[in-house]
Amino acid sequence: MFLGLVIGSVWATQKEEGMDNLKLMIVQPIDAFGVRAGSQVIAADRIGAGVGENVIVSRGSPARVLFGGKAVPIDAMIVGIVDSFDVAERSSGEEENGWKKSNG
Amino acid sequence: MFLGLVIGSVWATQKEEGMDNLKLMIVQPIDAFGVRAGSQVIAADRIGAGVGENVIVSRGSPARVLFGGKAVPIDAMIVGIVDSFDVAERSSGEEENGWKKSNG
Amino acid sequence: MFLGLVIGSVWATQKEEGMDNLKLMIVQPIDAFGVRAGSQVIAADRIGAGVGENVIVSRGSPARVLFGGKAVPIDAMIVGIVDSFDVAERSSGEEENGWKKSNG
Amino acid sequence: MFLGLVIGSVWATQKEEGMDNLKLMIVQPIDAFGVRAGSQVIAADRIGAGVGENVIVSRGSPARVLFGGKAVPIDAMIVGIVDSFDVAERSSGEEENGWKKSNG
Amino acid sequence: MFLGLVIGSVWATQKEEGMDNLKLMIVQPIDAFGVRAGSQVIAADRIGAGVGENVIVSRGSPARVLFGGKAVPIDAMIVGIVDSFDVAERSSGEEENGWKKSNG
Repeated sequence: MFLGLVIGSVWATQKEEGMDNLKLMIVQPIDAFGVRAGSQVIAADRIGAGVGENVIVSRGSPARVLFGGKAVPIDAMIVGIVDSFDVAERSSGEEENGWKKSNG
Repeated sequence: MFLGLVIGSVWATQKEEGMDNLKLMIVQPIDAFGVRAGSQVIAADRIGAGVGENVIVSRGSPARVLFGGKAVPIDAMIVGIVDSFDVAERSSGEEENGWKKSNG
Repeated sequence: MFLGLVIGSVWATQKEEGMDNLKLMIVQPIDAFGVRAGSQVIAADRIGAGVGENVIVSRGSPARVLFGGKAVPIDAMIVGIVDSFDVAERSSGEEENGWKKSNG
Repeated sequence: MFLGLVIGSVWATQKEEGMDNLKLMIVQPIDAFGVRAGSQVIAADRIGAGVGENVIVSRGSPARVLFGGKAVPIDAMIVGIVDSFDVAERSSGEEENGWKKSNG
Repeated sequence: MFLGLVIGSVWATQKEEGMDNLKLMIVQPIDAFGVRAGSQVIAADRIGAGVGENVIVSRGSPARVLFGGKAVPIDAMIVGIVDSFDVAERSSGEEENGWKKSNG
């Protein structure tokens, strides 16, 4: 999975089978320090993620497993809304810096 | 999924099993601000996407699920034609910029 | 899928189960303008693609679907030899440039 | 798989089905020389990996296979905690440099 | 698949189910000209690949197919040890350069 910031949503009337009734959010991958990390992803959301929230996104077939045997061509899902995270990074093995962050 | 701009189409006479009767489009991934984001993708289209339109593309096994048990070696599908999208991005947590965009 | 240029072939005597009798080609991904786009891929070929030809390559599980239930650990297949393609790209929404290209 | 350094952990109360009781770690991919190699990944951990440890992370459907038929939308798992590794790299075929490293 | 140079091996005592008795090698992806191409990959090896050898690596679910129904969370396998390869690349359609290379 990757950490992301929800930055928007997208609508499509003309769409493939299995794409009905899916809320599609635009997610900017970020690292644990809030820095952008790669290209935006469009992810389906069923847990009520809103713009400005940090989320966990799962990709590929594992994201699709939630739809079971249904032919839903979804390759990215928001699987969690981040409450908080801890990051401690050792640079060159001696120094250790700690961060605590809460969402919102 | 990712957001893309349809920039062309491609034809192949000599092809693998399961590739017949598939319209193949060349899609340039873009971000929500219209900026190019990564390498072009060739995606199958069954919903009538045309050159110049913004689309949503799904990749990998989830893109193939639409063909059920058939041996169709497709790893990218256009799953939606974008009507519009909203993007709001907070830079450094204070500033918030809003965009609205319609396709076409 | 992605567009690629076949630039060579590779041989291996010592190999895994399911890798016998497979022609393996070295493919350089390119964009629709012929510019290199990412790292080379080794793809299996069953449709007679030759060095210097533009091809369509499918990756991941969808590439493997052609081997059905057999344990063939192939993650990339040449699924089409490009006859021609059309590319039209709008830069900033006003200008439109058109290209036509034939293979060979 | 890729080599990674566990740099933190993340919590989510609001989450998708199948995400309960999973410890989620933030992993920074590194190369065998300790240099960062790509974007951070959020991986599930069931083997007790701690911050500061080098781990092996598997991604995609293979990471999900450990949950069998359960609808767990996990696309990355810590599959091993690194004890040690040996790296020998030939530059231009003549020179050979050797490294030995232990975790911890 | 991709072409790679085996540069080392890695050991883990604490590991997930299905990871026992697997030799794990560190592989540096290279292009057909020997130039590094992307981040190192940890791949399982069952065909006796050694440090300094050029190999073919398959990734994702196709790499896992060799373990059948067993819950082995492996996402990369060495599927061939390269004997030799031919590369011919046309720059701008006129010039053609040829290389032949043998492993070892």
